Amino acid sequence: MTAEQEQDYPAKTVRVTVLGATGSIGQSVADLIARNPDRFEVVALVANSSADALAEMALRLNAKSAVLCDPRNFEDLKNRLSGSGIDTASGDQAVFEAVDRDTDLVIGAIVGAAGLLPTMAAIKPGRRIALANKECLVCAGDLFMGKIAAEDAEILPVDSEHNAIFQVFEASHPDSIEKVILTASGGPFRTMAFEDMVRVTPQQALKHPNWDMGARISIDSATMMNKGLEVIEAHHLFPVSADQLDVLVHPQSAVHGLVQYRDGSLLAQLGSPDMRTPIAHCMAYPRRMQTPVERLDLAKLGSLTFEAPDMKRFPALRIALEALRSGGTAPAVLNAADETAVAAFLKGAIGFMDIPAAVEEALSAFSAKGKLAPAATVEDVLALDQEARVWTGHWISSRAA
Amino acid sequence: MTAEQEQDYPAKTVRVTVLGATGSIGQSVADLIARNPDRFEVVALVANSSADALAEMALRLNAKSAVLCDPRNFEDLKNRLSGSGIDTASGDQAVFEAVDRDTDLVIGAIVGAAGLLPTMAAIKPGRRIALANKECLVCAGDLFMGKIAAEDAEILPVDSEHNAIFQVFEASHPDSIEKVILTASGGPFRTMAFEDMVRVTPQQALKHPNWDMGARISIDSATMMNKGLEVIEAHHLFPVSADQLDVLVHPQSAVHGLVQYRDGSLLAQLGSPDMRTPIAHCMAYPRRMQTPVERLDLAKLGSLTFEAPDMKRFPALRIALEALRSGGTAPAVLNAADETAVAAFLKGAIGFMDIPAAVEEALSAFSAKGKLAPAATVEDVLALDQEARVWTGHWISSRAA
Repeated sequence: MTAEQEQDYPAKTVRVTVLGATGSIGQSVADLIARNPDRFEVVALVANSSADALAEMALRLNAKSAVLCDPRNFEDLKNRLSGSGIDTASGDQAVFEAVDRDTDLVIGAIVGAAGLLPTMAAIKPGRRIALANKECLVCAGDLFMGKIAAEDAEILPVDSEHNAIFQVFEASHPDSIEKVILTASGGPFRTMAFEDMVRVTPQQALKHPNWDMGARISIDSATMMNKGLEVIEAHHLFPVSADQLDVLVHPQSAVHGLVQYRDGSLLAQLGSPDMRTPIAHCMAYPRRMQTPVERLDLAKLGSLTFEAPDMKRFPALRIALEALRSGGTAPAVLNAADETAVAAFLKGAIGFMDIPAAVEEALSAFSAKGKLAPAATVEDVLALDQEARVWTGHWISSRAA
Repeated sequence: MTAEQEQDYPAKTVRVTVLGATGSIGQSVADLIARNPDRFEVVALVANSSADALAEMALRLNAKSAVLCDPRNFEDLKNRLSGSGIDTASGDQAVFEAVDRDTDLVIGAIVGAAGLLPTMAAIKPGRRIALANKECLVCAGDLFMGKIAAEDAEILPVDSEHNAIFQVFEASHPDSIEKVILTASGGPFRTMAFEDMVRVTPQQALKHPNWDMGARISIDSATMMNKGLEVIEAHHLFPVSADQLDVLVHPQSAVHGLVQYRDGSLLAQLGSPDMRTPIAHCMAYPRRMQTPVERLDLAKLGSLTFEAPDMKRFPALRIALEALRSGGTAPAVLNAADETAVAAFLKGAIGFMDIPAAVEEALSAFSAKGKLAPAATVEDVLALDQEARVWTGHWISSRAA
């Protein structure tokens, strides 16, 4: 125990840029900044279209600038912030200008494929990117991680499972790591018979047992596609092979991730299902900051259970692992087809078990067309993403007809 | 993930000295060295009296020297090793000379108070002490840790609970740690009614559910005094207050220790109940070495349960925590009285619940005599240890009479 004590967190004031400021992750970031106003300096808050929420947050956090992607509500934002001294702007170009402003930490929390270009643009030398956007790694993992390395930037995972693994992953000697294990709640249909799963309604599928989440991620959690996407992300985040990545069903969602070492040690991060813990970890890393998150009380919880995932009832997980092994742009097609199929399921156009079927069909079709080779640019990825959405939409229409 | 990869473990050949070579810990150390012969160089093996086992191990590990504390079997050792080129010696002075030989890592695995002086003597600048002896910290924690600091040596805990905590304790910023949690199996009487515990036999108490251990530690585990002693050790090993140390009953002994951080993260080390994992961790630290230990399979295990300890049925735990809070030499008296009472219980002289009663009486008596002030030297600690054993022996005799 010879290491010197470091009392402060972070060591100096950290300049923060938040992409996706008014979403769920952005709100949690704002909550933590507001609790530690002398530790953080908000360079820019970027939101899609919620002018009121963005203005309120910019005032509360004393941000230097507030930017809307969608220009339609820009007048609202400008009026709300007039006389505040806070810069305002809107439109794609304004987003890239906001990303260019000097900063230390970028929270990449724009949801969906829309997050790809701005988050990629935010990677600059010495910066730390706390990543919450799934598509950056699922659809463009090689390009994204390649730019992180090329720019000597650093990536910190915000997602609770990846953040858990990051916390117990001894990055200085990855050769000593045998396995990286992502836990999965198993979703609302963990114990449901296969024949009943075919008849699942959107209302049933939207009920997640532990986390309060958006619609797509709730459905992805019910099909376990979400866990498949997370395994793909983990493959980019951590220097381990696809064979070293495991999924463990753990309905209580108390253990978020584990790392198995070659000496027999299995390290784990546990916590209440509250995103402020992984977000705070990214914001204070390598130190730790105080959060009001309810502490996990294992004696009160009583029991933690674990089981192997059932690949038959949850084919999405199998399909995602196959896409990971295929490599190239297979995960991008997987993601686009899934998002399209989930939207169709939510509208009642297809059944629950048609979601993985649609994804598997899309992957087969794009493979047959020779379209799963690695992409050279993010623009190529986005074009393929669009193509896969259109293809899946057609497949769904033809099936419904 | 910018840290450079380090493929080798340890970085160079490590010179090892083993105190208590033929005991259970020493045998595990030898097993690991034999599996990695090019990584370790055995400077000295020190055993109490098992000449045959010591000679066999010295030959197997190509040790430079083999030393017996007890001179009675020295002829056997000398004969067994004649012509091998391995130095042999015996007696207290020879032990201290063995400890003086240049080395990098000392495994301090002598059992009981006999380990105090040699282990203390082994603390030298730049050395790493992998400590498995309980008394060094329980009876002489301030002196031991004071010498570790003064000599700029390093201490690594071998005990599975402390090693688990060490693995997930972020020593560079202890202020961010809210709690350190030691798990306890609860022993064989975890669910037994208080009235039945009074009639427990030595045979019942010797059966530990998960670990294969010596007689005293098995009884200490049954009374939970063992966990109390471990909390005292943890207080010396980690920079946390007594109030920050918690005990959590966890019958499956899969989670060995946890650390609660102020951001809500709870980090844990898990593993099979096999001492080779914590030993290997100490031997390869800060890297990791391969062990043949069975990997923990959580899906196969199915369920981990947790409960708060019952201080009424396990007064030993309460008494140990009180001794920790009293400070000074209270833990030394606690340990001596407990060892004496356990021996009396094993001989049938007292009942199971008389063990904590004897310890509490001893602490009261020594407190009343003003004998619990901090000790100035290890010799003072050893004298008090003897005095407490004699006192407890008398108390037991008078009670039995």
